[in-house]
Amino acid sequence: MAKELKELTSRSQDYSQWYLDLVIKADLAENSAVRGCMVIKPYGYAIWEKMQRQLDDMFKETGHVNAYFPLFIPKSFLSKEADHVEGFAKECAVVTHYRLKNDPDGKGVIVDPEAKLEEELIVRPTSETIIWNTYRNWIQSYRDLPLLINQWANVVRWEMRTRLFLRTAEFLWQEGHTAHATREEAEEETVKMLNIYAQFAEEHMAIPVIKGVKSASERFAGAIDTYAIEAMMQDGKALQAGTSHFLGQNFAKAFDVKFADKEGKMDYVWATSWGVSTRLIGALIMAHSDDNGLVLPPKLAPFQVVIVPIYKGEEQLAAINEKADGIVKSLKASGISVKYDNADNKKPGWKFSEYELKGVPVRLAMGARDMENNTVEVARRDTLTKETVSCDSLDIYIKNLLDDIQANIYNKALAYRTEKTITVETYEEFKEKIEDGVFILAHWDGTAETEEKIKAETKATIRCIPLEGDKTQGKCMVTGNPSTQRVVFARAY
Amino acid sequence: MAKELKELTSRSQDYSQWYLDLVIKADLAENSAVRGCMVIKPYGYAIWEKMQRQLDDMFKETGHVNAYFPLFIPKSFLSKEADHVEGFAKECAVVTHYRLKNDPDGKGVIVDPEAKLEEELIVRPTSETIIWNTYRNWIQSYRDLPLLINQWANVVRWEMRTRLFLRTAEFLWQEGHTAHATREEAEEETVKMLNIYAQFAEEHMAIPVIKGVKSASERFAGAIDTYAIEAMMQDGKALQAGTSHFLGQNFAKAFDVKFADKEGKMDYVWATSWGVSTRLIGALIMAHSDDNGLVLPPKLAPFQVVIVPIYKGEEQLAAINEKADGIVKSLKASGISVKYDNADNKKPGWKFSEYELKGVPVRLAMGARDMENNTVEVARRDTLTKETVSCDSLDIYIKNLLDDIQANIYNKALAYRTEKTITVETYEEFKEKIEDGVFILAHWDGTAETEEKIKAETKATIRCIPLEGDKTQGKCMVTGNPSTQRVVFARAY
Repeated sequence: MAKELKELTSRSQDYSQWYLDLVIKADLAENSAVRGCMVIKPYGYAIWEKMQRQLDDMFKETGHVNAYFPLFIPKSFLSKEADHVEGFAKECAVVTHYRLKNDPDGKGVIVDPEAKLEEELIVRPTSETIIWNTYRNWIQSYRDLPLLINQWANVVRWEMRTRLFLRTAEFLWQEGHTAHATREEAEEETVKMLNIYAQFAEEHMAIPVIKGVKSASERFAGAIDTYAIEAMMQDGKALQAGTSHFLGQNFAKAFDVKFADKEGKMDYVWATSWGVSTRLIGALIMAHSDDNGLVLPPKLAPFQVVIVPIYKGEEQLAAINEKADGIVKSLKASGISVKYDNADNKKPGWKFSEYELKGVPVRLAMGARDMENNTVEVARRDTLTKETVSCDSLDIYIKNLLDDIQANIYNKALAYRTEKTITVETYEEFKEKIEDGVFILAHWDGTAETEEKIKAETKATIRCIPLEGDKTQGKCMVTGNPSTQRVVFARAY
Repeated sequence: MAKELKELTSRSQDYSQWYLDLVIKADLAENSAVRGCMVIKPYGYAIWEKMQRQLDDMFKETGHVNAYFPLFIPKSFLSKEADHVEGFAKECAVVTHYRLKNDPDGKGVIVDPEAKLEEELIVRPTSETIIWNTYRNWIQSYRDLPLLINQWANVVRWEMRTRLFLRTAEFLWQEGHTAHATREEAEEETVKMLNIYAQFAEEHMAIPVIKGVKSASERFAGAIDTYAIEAMMQDGKALQAGTSHFLGQNFAKAFDVKFADKEGKMDYVWATSWGVSTRLIGALIMAHSDDNGLVLPPKLAPFQVVIVPIYKGEEQLAAINEKADGIVKSLKASGISVKYDNADNKKPGWKFSEYELKGVPVRLAMGARDMENNTVEVARRDTLTKETVSCDSLDIYIKNLLDDIQANIYNKALAYRTEKTITVETYEEFKEKIEDGVFILAHWDGTAETEEKIKAETKATIRCIPLEGDKTQGKCMVTGNPSTQRVVFARAY
């Protein structure tokens, strides 16, 4: 069984297959009977809950509150913002009827043709339209602003090619929708939320990210500017891990949302929206895990420590149980989540493999000799190293170890990205190097034509125009025209 | 403004209108542009978050884990369990297409007739079918059992007559779906979850509930037995606040979910499901609130204490700010949630009305004299009484006060229910007394015919067959046939 559990395709053999194997074998998610929709299994959902709790705390600390808006959007709403409809109104689930009836032939149920909706409803692909239609009634004056609202919800986009967590027809996410009296304030909010996403990615997911602005062609449909955090996966491809949009007055104009300023002058309201989704779980897996299974950063692991007893006979087990009980209590008192697995229908070796596969950051094993010596064997998931340590002050030791692991996972990902990020000057070099799976910093002339040509010829896209780092001007590697700064190119998920 | 804010219809004048006024004016929820779907506003959603957090903790303490299943259910799934389809397959949102396209006339978008689904998808009205279809692959042997899974999700039932929180087309809920090796274990789980709901209702919502079994005609579609908790609202009507279903092997048979027991013998798996929804917010409002606004039990109030400064001039304000800051810190350190409202664009009287309307359990007011005397004025929302207390050890005083308020709100609701619960012997008396808005304990012969006759003639239904209390046998008040125990009749939401 241990063998079978561990049978992952290796990353070098087939990275995509390794990812899918891991998602399935680590019990994170699976495909459902409904095309493109996934089932998020308890272990995968527990990671999402950790992410949610942390993000929700960060949103609330910065003054945001949660609310809930309808799942359905009247079809006509989508057409109100011209760019938005182009981006979102196409591949989506359409509700046309509101009743079924018994099939006259006695077999099952059929759609009742009498129960056709006057106007079709779209299952939300994102909620700007329904929310701004609501905001119209909530905002009269500057006193009602800013409105800082977030929603945790499910959304549906009818993707044709799906992959668990990374691209599914239905996914879970949060979407912030804020309203402001001035352009400056809305722009500040957009960047503030980008920074929160970056902080979350780096401090909790242990994934270094590049903060930047999207090129026009990669902008959210209806936005003036889209900011994103971009992360590198272990195959050198980029994954957009969160976006924050400055929407200007586009949605306020589309839904006629005006406010009176302090002088009583009416103006349209300024907007932002920002979101991250269950896609982050895909990023987490692909950034850190190895051929043995998941590697989870301690801050997002469903449980951080597992204790496995190694014993012969009931008497030894009873003694270890007692000792383990004390350790569990002391670790929990230090805020460490811990599982003691003394199930008798599985061997220690099987358990070791299972928890390695599941990415539990620290494994403690206790056998007869450990009992004699007041020690425990401590195994780190990130480095796969083991050592024997004293049970005295074990809580402090483990707390520090978890911090070390969190830092080490981040540092490893950062070192990998640094190694795989290069600078090129010519398009020839670009075309050659992009095949290696790297981030390339190169000059671009700022036009959609050049961007499109590069994409068509190399499958690489502009991931973002970085906000930080080198701002030296130069010449576009393709056209030789002036470039204001280097941008990040990569192939992407 | 204070006047306008408080303009609630009184309960005695029109209880239904009072409820709707309150939901709107206390900023809890509103109707959306989509028929029957509500917008849950931040203040209402904050109550839901408190409920969620508490329930989720209780579920996890009893060994349950969360997961997520698809929003959509293939139409054919609904027909697989014969009773289930009768109860659920009718009024529901049906997805028939997956794409829109530009209207050839250039105005907006239309449904793309080319993008018709082969099989229609139903937006989940409840998830037994999709979940048991999934469980088939998760359960092979007794070692995979019990499976104790809960889901937090949105569901849709196309209700024709809706009322905010109480009955809406889309609502938020949790649905537990468990799988067991034996009938006894599944029955135990059903009752365990009923007890958890009762504990939550009584200890957190401060609402006394009657635990009981539903009559056959009120059973969940597909269940062997439905258990419920029933609460009395201030108009004497009943509200079903949570249900727990023993599903027998019905869904296991419908979806062919079998397991091998310890002896290797194959059998169908035993099931339960249980849920509570945003309807609980409606119950909370109707059970406790008064003509001045919401009355929230401290354990579910978005914030428990509000502090309002009463001052003339900047200097006084600065002094009060400093003092209030100390109080806020000490209250927060004691785990009390507190808001300090020193906004200068609203008068204290306006704030008093607003927080009364919003049901904040405790209001502290601090003026110049309080500053001199080291006191604060403490107002209780539940009793509308005020007293002046010392700022020394205020945190302990408030902590005890919040406990008092929680207990008092519960006791008041219990006293009301006790007063409004009567026993009758004859159907004549029943028909007369039911008009008063009461719970009636009466004997019933156990037949659907009698139940239906009573319902048709009095609009009262059997709320439940109570699990606790008097079990004396008797004679049906309508037919005179034998009855095993009194059951609870009431008109209901």
